Amino acid sequence: MTKPVTLSLDVMGGDRGPDMVLPGAEIALVRCPSIRFILFGDEARIAPLLATRPKLAAASEVRHCDIAVRMDDKPSQALRNGRWRSSMWRAIEAVKTGEAAAAISAGNTGALMAMAKFCLRTMDGVERPAIAAIWPTVRGESIVLDVGATIGADANQLADFAILGGAMARAVLGVERPTIGLLNVGVEEIKGLEEVKAAARLLRESAPATISYHGFVEGDDVGSGTVDVVVTEGFAGNIALKTAEGTARQIGAYLKAAMNRSLLSRLGYLLAKRAFDQLREKMDPRTANGGVFLGLNGLVIKSHGGTDAEGFASAVELAYDMARNDLQVKIADDIRRFREDRERVGQAAAAAVAP
Amino acid sequence: MTKPVTLSLDVMGGDRGPDMVLPGAEIALVRCPSIRFILFGDEARIAPLLATRPKLAAASEVRHCDIAVRMDDKPSQALRNGRWRSSMWRAIEAVKTGEAAAAISAGNTGALMAMAKFCLRTMDGVERPAIAAIWPTVRGESIVLDVGATIGADANQLADFAILGGAMARAVLGVERPTIGLLNVGVEEIKGLEEVKAAARLLRESAPATISYHGFVEGDDVGSGTVDVVVTEGFAGNIALKTAEGTARQIGAYLKAAMNRSLLSRLGYLLAKRAFDQLREKMDPRTANGGVFLGLNGLVIKSHGGTDAEGFASAVELAYDMARNDLQVKIADDIRRFREDRERVGQAAAAAVAP
Repeated sequence: MTKPVTLSLDVMGGDRGPDMVLPGAEIALVRCPSIRFILFGDEARIAPLLATRPKLAAASEVRHCDIAVRMDDKPSQALRNGRWRSSMWRAIEAVKTGEAAAAISAGNTGALMAMAKFCLRTMDGVERPAIAAIWPTVRGESIVLDVGATIGADANQLADFAILGGAMARAVLGVERPTIGLLNVGVEEIKGLEEVKAAARLLRESAPATISYHGFVEGDDVGSGTVDVVVTEGFAGNIALKTAEGTARQIGAYLKAAMNRSLLSRLGYLLAKRAFDQLREKMDPRTANGGVFLGLNGLVIKSHGGTDAEGFASAVELAYDMARNDLQVKIADDIRRFREDRERVGQAAAAAVAP
Repeated sequence: MTKPVTLSLDVMGGDRGPDMVLPGAEIALVRCPSIRFILFGDEARIAPLLATRPKLAAASEVRHCDIAVRMDDKPSQALRNGRWRSSMWRAIEAVKTGEAAAAISAGNTGALMAMAKFCLRTMDGVERPAIAAIWPTVRGESIVLDVGATIGADANQLADFAILGGAMARAVLGVERPTIGLLNVGVEEIKGLEEVKAAARLLRESAPATISYHGFVEGDDVGSGTVDVVVTEGFAGNIALKTAEGTARQIGAYLKAAMNRSLLSRLGYLLAKRAFDQLREKMDPRTANGGVFLGLNGLVIKSHGGTDAEGFASAVELAYDMARNDLQVKIADDIRRFREDRERVGQAAAAAVAP
């Protein structure tokens, strides 16, 4: 039997809290029976939901918390009121103590990132955490980061993101040596931001053997799956992610309107219904639900606040996959190698100019 | 009869040059018979194409140019080799001299922007030109700028873009008082870049009465048509535009694959074919083909280099629309009012703190 993997859940997170989180946890448990849960939240709300779900109850341990971070709390407010004792904080803390392999919350992103940074701290050798998204592409799936942890990034931070994303691609997408692209406004070397160009130099010179630096990519390369990992800073990354989501919704609306226009097209729709269902599944943001916080001393997964149980289950399964595949160990190894290589390049350069 | 509008064409621009540009011009002429063309390019290639198109020939005047800017010329190369004499330069120059109301080129963007800036210069009161794109939305169409003229923009430049885009929305979309949104990574006032926040203050305080400042918008607001004009700097704008194009192509590929999967879905497709054709038209990047250079002393429209005749025709018609609706006059008026208002606000603030 597969070794159990323990995950901690912030049961109070998300627009619907326990009513969405617990059914979601149950869906994930049916598909991955070796998951064990520690459930942080209001026991009075959790108990009746568990009473009707004996399988989930058997795989779970409940830890009562008085405080729930609200969806509209500012990060500073959340830290002030919720540190040490909110369901969000304690779910993260379970990762720090080693009780859980990853924490999952559908709570508000700013608060979750602030608490995760405060509680887990940044990994040795990494300057800043990033939020990574799994992006459906024509070829399968890619990883895009940072989609909103921080605005702006210098060359070192962008290069770190490449290492973090590369390790995640190995753990989650099962690619042996993922290709990495830097998001830019042109593929020619002369274009783009100074920081992006400097990051390209760093990656060309000292990327670890576990990843393959591809070069610059543009916005339309993301969806076509040109590379396994797309690296950018949080402002552009967030705008790209939301623009793609908006475009998918927009085309869905066009499609629906077009199909309802005439009797013939409605009949055609009915005949092609299975094909449409498959298409909808591909376009479904729930199946790729979950922003992964990378670069911290522990795994934290952010699920969409407005997701349903199916979407939350896919975030739980993503956490399970990453934990089973030792993502944190892979990241630590790659970061160490990258740092050593950069020092070696630096020393060689220094030796070359020595008298 | 409608007053004729003269447009200058860089016939040598685009991947296919005259073979695409002249058929495109003819399509536009059939739809807007009051257009007159000045055609700049290689006479030896233009003459045989005009010989088979008597209507286009009658509406056109050919000006021979020896030099054509290549699609892969760097802007500096293009300026060095092509200034004063290339088809691209001379098409722009015809706008400067007043012979033409707008210039259209499918040539390379960097070269076209460099030449347009050099030849036409920036408008009085505008610091920097921007490239504006017309973006199909669920509600109709919006304008997004800057989609790639310059990387980065300060608060003043972003506020200028709002004025430029607002004037274009009035001229092209026919909206009386267009709504303006600043692209950001969150709708809360606390989030986002310093420059974007400062631009928001400027627009709240002194936006001219011709536009209505809406506030921050996010990536998914673009496609849903939340505002008439979306303002951002060129890096994020370019990435948003290309990401949306990529997503549309990606979903098109999914749709095709889904429809071909079974006999039943293929039959359904045939029954719904008209609906699909309408959908394809909505998603067709050619119908929104044309980046508009705003903020210069003259109108220049960039068509996609890889477009076909239909796409080029839509860029020509866009130029025709803008010229007929006095876009340049609208912009000059709005910029003047905005400057005056800001001075007034500045003087009032100074008076308030005076002893």
